[in-house]
Amino acid sequence: MPGPLSDEQLATIDAYWRAANYLSVGQIYLRGNPLLEQPLTRADVKPRLLGHWGTTPGINFVYVHLNRLIVEHTLNMMYIIGPGHGGPGLVANAYLEGSYTEHYPAIERSRGGMERLFRQFSWPGGIPSHVSPETPGSIHEGGELGYSLAHAYGAAFDNPDLIVACIVGDGEAETGPLAASWHSNKFINPARDGAVLPILHLNGYKIANPTILARIGRDELTDLLRGYGHEPYFVEGDDPALLHQIMAQTLKLVLAEIRSIQAAARNGAAPPPRPRWPMIVLKTPKGWTGPKVVDGLPVEGTWRAHQVPLADFSKPEHLHQLEEWLQSYRPDELFDADGKIRDALAALAPTGHRRMSSNPHANGGMLLEPLSLPDFRDFAVTLDRPGAVEAEATRVLGQYLREVMRLNLDRQNFRLFGPDETASNRLDAMYDIADKAWMGEIDPVDEHLSATGRVMEVLSEHLCQGWLEGYLLTGRHGFFSCYEAFAHIVDSMLNQHAKWLKVSRNIPWRRPIASLNYLLTSHVWRQDHNGLSHQDPGFIDQVANKTAEVARVYLPPDANCLLSVAAHCLRSRDYVNLIVAGKQPEWQWLGIEEAVRHCTAGAGIWHWAGTGDDGPDVVMGCAGDVPTLETLAAVMLLREYVPDIRIRVVNVVDLMVLESRSEHPHGLDDRGFDALFGTDIPVIFAFHGFPAMIHKLTYRRTNHANIHVRGYKQEGTTTTPFDMVVLNDLDRFRLALDAIERIPRLADRIPAARDRYWATIERHKLYIAEHGEDMPDIQNWRWSA
Amino acid sequence: MPGPLSDEQLATIDAYWRAANYLSVGQIYLRGNPLLEQPLTRADVKPRLLGHWGTTPGINFVYVHLNRLIVEHTLNMMYIIGPGHGGPGLVANAYLEGSYTEHYPAIERSRGGMERLFRQFSWPGGIPSHVSPETPGSIHEGGELGYSLAHAYGAAFDNPDLIVACIVGDGEAETGPLAASWHSNKFINPARDGAVLPILHLNGYKIANPTILARIGRDELTDLLRGYGHEPYFVEGDDPALLHQIMAQTLKLVLAEIRSIQAAARNGAAPPPRPRWPMIVLKTPKGWTGPKVVDGLPVEGTWRAHQVPLADFSKPEHLHQLEEWLQSYRPDELFDADGKIRDALAALAPTGHRRMSSNPHANGGMLLEPLSLPDFRDFAVTLDRPGAVEAEATRVLGQYLREVMRLNLDRQNFRLFGPDETASNRLDAMYDIADKAWMGEIDPVDEHLSATGRVMEVLSEHLCQGWLEGYLLTGRHGFFSCYEAFAHIVDSMLNQHAKWLKVSRNIPWRRPIASLNYLLTSHVWRQDHNGLSHQDPGFIDQVANKTAEVARVYLPPDANCLLSVAAHCLRSRDYVNLIVAGKQPEWQWLGIEEAVRHCTAGAGIWHWAGTGDDGPDVVMGCAGDVPTLETLAAVMLLREYVPDIRIRVVNVVDLMVLESRSEHPHGLDDRGFDALFGTDIPVIFAFHGFPAMIHKLTYRRTNHANIHVRGYKQEGTTTTPFDMVVLNDLDRFRLALDAIERIPRLADRIPAARDRYWATIERHKLYIAEHGEDMPDIQNWRWSA
Repeated sequence: MPGPLSDEQLATIDAYWRAANYLSVGQIYLRGNPLLEQPLTRADVKPRLLGHWGTTPGINFVYVHLNRLIVEHTLNMMYIIGPGHGGPGLVANAYLEGSYTEHYPAIERSRGGMERLFRQFSWPGGIPSHVSPETPGSIHEGGELGYSLAHAYGAAFDNPDLIVACIVGDGEAETGPLAASWHSNKFINPARDGAVLPILHLNGYKIANPTILARIGRDELTDLLRGYGHEPYFVEGDDPALLHQIMAQTLKLVLAEIRSIQAAARNGAAPPPRPRWPMIVLKTPKGWTGPKVVDGLPVEGTWRAHQVPLADFSKPEHLHQLEEWLQSYRPDELFDADGKIRDALAALAPTGHRRMSSNPHANGGMLLEPLSLPDFRDFAVTLDRPGAVEAEATRVLGQYLREVMRLNLDRQNFRLFGPDETASNRLDAMYDIADKAWMGEIDPVDEHLSATGRVMEVLSEHLCQGWLEGYLLTGRHGFFSCYEAFAHIVDSMLNQHAKWLKVSRNIPWRRPIASLNYLLTSHVWRQDHNGLSHQDPGFIDQVANKTAEVARVYLPPDANCLLSVAAHCLRSRDYVNLIVAGKQPEWQWLGIEEAVRHCTAGAGIWHWAGTGDDGPDVVMGCAGDVPTLETLAAVMLLREYVPDIRIRVVNVVDLMVLESRSEHPHGLDDRGFDALFGTDIPVIFAFHGFPAMIHKLTYRRTNHANIHVRGYKQEGTTTTPFDMVVLNDLDRFRLALDAIERIPRLADRIPAARDRYWATIERHKLYIAEHGEDMPDIQNWRWSA
Repeated sequence: MPGPLSDEQLATIDAYWRAANYLSVGQIYLRGNPLLEQPLTRADVKPRLLGHWGTTPGINFVYVHLNRLIVEHTLNMMYIIGPGHGGPGLVANAYLEGSYTEHYPAIERSRGGMERLFRQFSWPGGIPSHVSPETPGSIHEGGELGYSLAHAYGAAFDNPDLIVACIVGDGEAETGPLAASWHSNKFINPARDGAVLPILHLNGYKIANPTILARIGRDELTDLLRGYGHEPYFVEGDDPALLHQIMAQTLKLVLAEIRSIQAAARNGAAPPPRPRWPMIVLKTPKGWTGPKVVDGLPVEGTWRAHQVPLADFSKPEHLHQLEEWLQSYRPDELFDADGKIRDALAALAPTGHRRMSSNPHANGGMLLEPLSLPDFRDFAVTLDRPGAVEAEATRVLGQYLREVMRLNLDRQNFRLFGPDETASNRLDAMYDIADKAWMGEIDPVDEHLSATGRVMEVLSEHLCQGWLEGYLLTGRHGFFSCYEAFAHIVDSMLNQHAKWLKVSRNIPWRRPIASLNYLLTSHVWRQDHNGLSHQDPGFIDQVANKTAEVARVYLPPDANCLLSVAAHCLRSRDYVNLIVAGKQPEWQWLGIEEAVRHCTAGAGIWHWAGTGDDGPDVVMGCAGDVPTLETLAAVMLLREYVPDIRIRVVNVVDLMVLESRSEHPHGLDDRGFDALFGTDIPVIFAFHGFPAMIHKLTYRRTNHANIHVRGYKQEGTTTTPFDMVVLNDLDRFRLALDAIERIPRLADRIPAARDRYWATIERHKLYIAEHGEDMPDIQNWRWSA
């Protein structure tokens, strides 16, 4: 077929592809005899065959063609591999490019190196079978599917010269997050951002089933992809020689189209219209070039090629088939006698940082510039005593974040992410300086939308998280605000990101990246509007289950503490920082310097709130803004009911101080913990989330048996703020009664306290049923020391 | 405009719509004066305005037209409302149809009833602002967005006469789960299943932003919907008279199309091809018929109409505007002097079970037929003593589930769900009796695919869960198998379903439905292939955080226990049952009768495994199949190392027995717990999941301070099965050492035990690095009593 590739180019490309395939099969199967210098024996084959062949040859095919394109056009390109099962392919390519050996010197480009390369794959103490942090050039873990395209867009934002080639598996394409991700192209600005080139890899099968997109026909698929805003280019077939030509030609067209879109946008004065971005549909057989038939059953082009097409080496014919398969790549043409890739082939790949396996964007810490941060003290709420003024904590934070944005505008390395909730979460001060990114039509009635916006709003927590992860992993900074309950939508994405960070921290060549910062607001205690469906504080548990190296949880009790915590999180690296704070007007407790000291310690005694810190009868502990309010109100009640007792108030900002030092680096040592919570006095602890979390964190502490926790116990509906705490036994009256019931010397006063408690709750119930709002003494409550 | 509606029909439809709108606005705003018999005063307006107007008039518009269609064609129709914020609209319609009063007699169709209807909405002790279990006719909670279409398909499966009208909000359409759900039409068989009629409601705005689908233009949107396999019919405008005609005409066409598709499929002999199902795109202004301008800013047709368009009643003009707005619906034409809807209007609605608010499918327990269950004992693994044979637990279960399917084939009320993992999870015996549902093209190489399949496989945990929820909520049964780690993808869906169950259980007219049964397999300890990304046992924590009324967690240690637990779960109602069990060949411990006794108790002493149950030196506790194996191996080691000690082995199947009885109905009373775990002896507890879970469950127990837990601590990679437990300190050698270290009288033997431990671990490391598989003594280990 006539095509853009000369015979020589075609031969080189095909040989390079065969080399990558050979090295991939070798990794999956071989522990010795890497160059097949002797006839293959069972001893050469690994005892446990763990890997995935099916998607790999297609990935290798794309890779070699991208290499050629990079060289020909001096591109700055990185990859995202959605079918992360193709791990051996990416490792093979990094090895062919030399960067694997640069990162792992023991894996030399020689016979011995190749043997180690093969052996380490899916070998205990070696490397995992998926694309992983260990894989040079990757920012995207293989395994859990669905996030490739969102990661790709996150990487492309604010990287105008970068092209992110993103292979989307047709299995992955069935997931929700991936299905939503196609619309990311409504948020990418060709004038300012890089380009994403989606390559939908239709190899037709998942683990055990055909894929939907492979079975809807080309017309319907074309409609779908055009409906997503793309222009699809089809590359389809199974004849390598033909496919090389078609792929080369298609990439040429696609690149020209990307360049043309970008040139139009960058040269124009007006904001660019939303373009129809090109994409590729690559339809090749699953397990292409692998065994066609095994034990009489078709394998190539079916789901049977998903993992290891040949598995039972007690059958001699399998060994024979494996040898034939490996030999079909003609390794002697590819590698010299020492096992080094032949120079003519090696020359096909780009060099230095143009190699996708060495692109610095894929090791984002290398490019990370610290944010220029304003002094958060400048945004502090001024108060001359605790409880003197009210403020909306997130609105105060919004003013700080606006200045963070302003100071870093020229660096273009900071974005705010939220699922249609930035204004609802009261961070809208941001719009003074940065609009919401929007490439769609803009109507006159719209506000704060523009193609150059830096606030990312889409009604998908998955997209917000995926974009942010991609943005962080390529060396930038971000902040994700979300309704507390709906953070669970991204539980699994959090898991995967936390795993990535945990592993990356121990890979010397991976440089630290900015932390993933969550602000959860519109929280469980103030869902007056939305009720039960919006009430769930369990994301704290989810983060706390992550490894202590990575997980941090903060519950600032007021606006100044929120400022201090947020500034700390923006400076931190390689963490998942969870901040939970309300958006409603609440009384403020700490001046800014006091807030800084308190947040730095992570927890502390609020001497101004207690009535006898030295030898208290009870410790009133609290974590979270609403629990803190209720605790302080309970202290006022106790001062009235039982003025003769001594109360210590302890507030916890950094939840992990409660855990033992042996379990978490933020954990207080036992002396420090005991100094706050005592060793033999009752502790009434009011907690923002599920009470069991506090027990889980403190069960090793001396005084644990005396810690009595109140928190969310799955009760709720659309109701008043105070009724929410009543429903969950977290209200001031209950906390005060808890204290009286647990102080031994008050035993005789318990009956009266209980009567008073029940009378109050009855009064509350009658009042809200009649008036639909909280009682005046609750609404008008103020702290008085 | 000429149209299908006569002038009289048009007038009635419009009046009915106005009545629903009036009642909706009344619910959001009014606490008194429901018929506006006096001029509106501030005292008539609720003090807290909590509700969502924006989407409501569009929902009411759809509803009245569906009512007309139901009556004209005697349809069996139910609704799913994606924009669940439209709660007041659905309540209003149920009230207009009379079913609200039937369910809640105090809400009469009279002035007083209307006042109570208005007042209860978003009122403490009243009803929540969203569509919720309290709403007659609903199976879909408003609030968290994304699951409407999946629920609709779940409801339609196996209900050939049912049409499920599903309103999809354009905000919701941006979510991942919804984006994936469109492809559900590849799984619905017009010959056997009902129809889903998606109505994409393009009102243009989310909380604070335009929606993507409203801004991509009609051509691109048409491509997209055709790409999803639908034929879209557009109903667009803001002139009610015109829109009523267009909607009536469109519904006529759409119904004819559905009928024609079904007739073709039901009359044909051959399996029907996949049809192009019709759908509607309804483009009307957000907050249609509400205030156009408030305080000089446009409201109708913008995001400002999302919640309460008029909110600040300190401004007299707002009160005036509210009155004008309410009067614009001309309530005196709609309701008689007593507040009862006029008969001519009421006659528009269907009656009895044809009313969508009274459709029995939406109260699935009414239709629930118990499964015919085979005796699970027939599938038991036979063993004459513990550890005598190996079996793959899930494969054994698969044979039982196959028979469950067979026995219920004629009822068509059982399906199996899994994200492309049924075979991988070794439940493929099912294919003997039921194929995988697949309406797409089928190639000769495909296996077990057919239009009449009852195994639902799609690579989306969201879709599996959403379909299953819809199927259960409409009174059928199902079973969801999933890789353990990826169950986190549906954490948030689990939350919402558990909330629904919790509330439903306390609504007298809601009848119990079949439990949501999860089988998590391919679990954390046996991800030899997939490594770290597939290793996460945290879904247990997620379920355990749900309310004790609903949450159940089972960790069967072997195949017979798995059978017993699964049969129990299939019989249960209104629970979320989580079962975690491995699929790999493992030694079997209990004969079937013993397994039944053990699972019924939930936990018990394994006398045959211990060496001194009566006065043990140590309790070796375990929960989960791999921890049980390691514990028994540790017991063998201890018998060798320290033969003079007395060991009690306690296995836990039902995790919640560990919790106090006061916290969970399955919790053992303290005497029962102490009888297993003692009060002052060391307990070494090997747990499948995160160790903190055991502490959280047992912290109130007398012996808690002596319970030492091993479990998953976020260590893992692609490695051997035994190396996984070594990495996490859950291996037999570690457990044995733990025991020795904690038995006081063995203090002098600790140094030798430690030396032995470290030597063993060193030997293990060397062996697997060299051989890539576990040491022979691990691979060949067998229990000997």
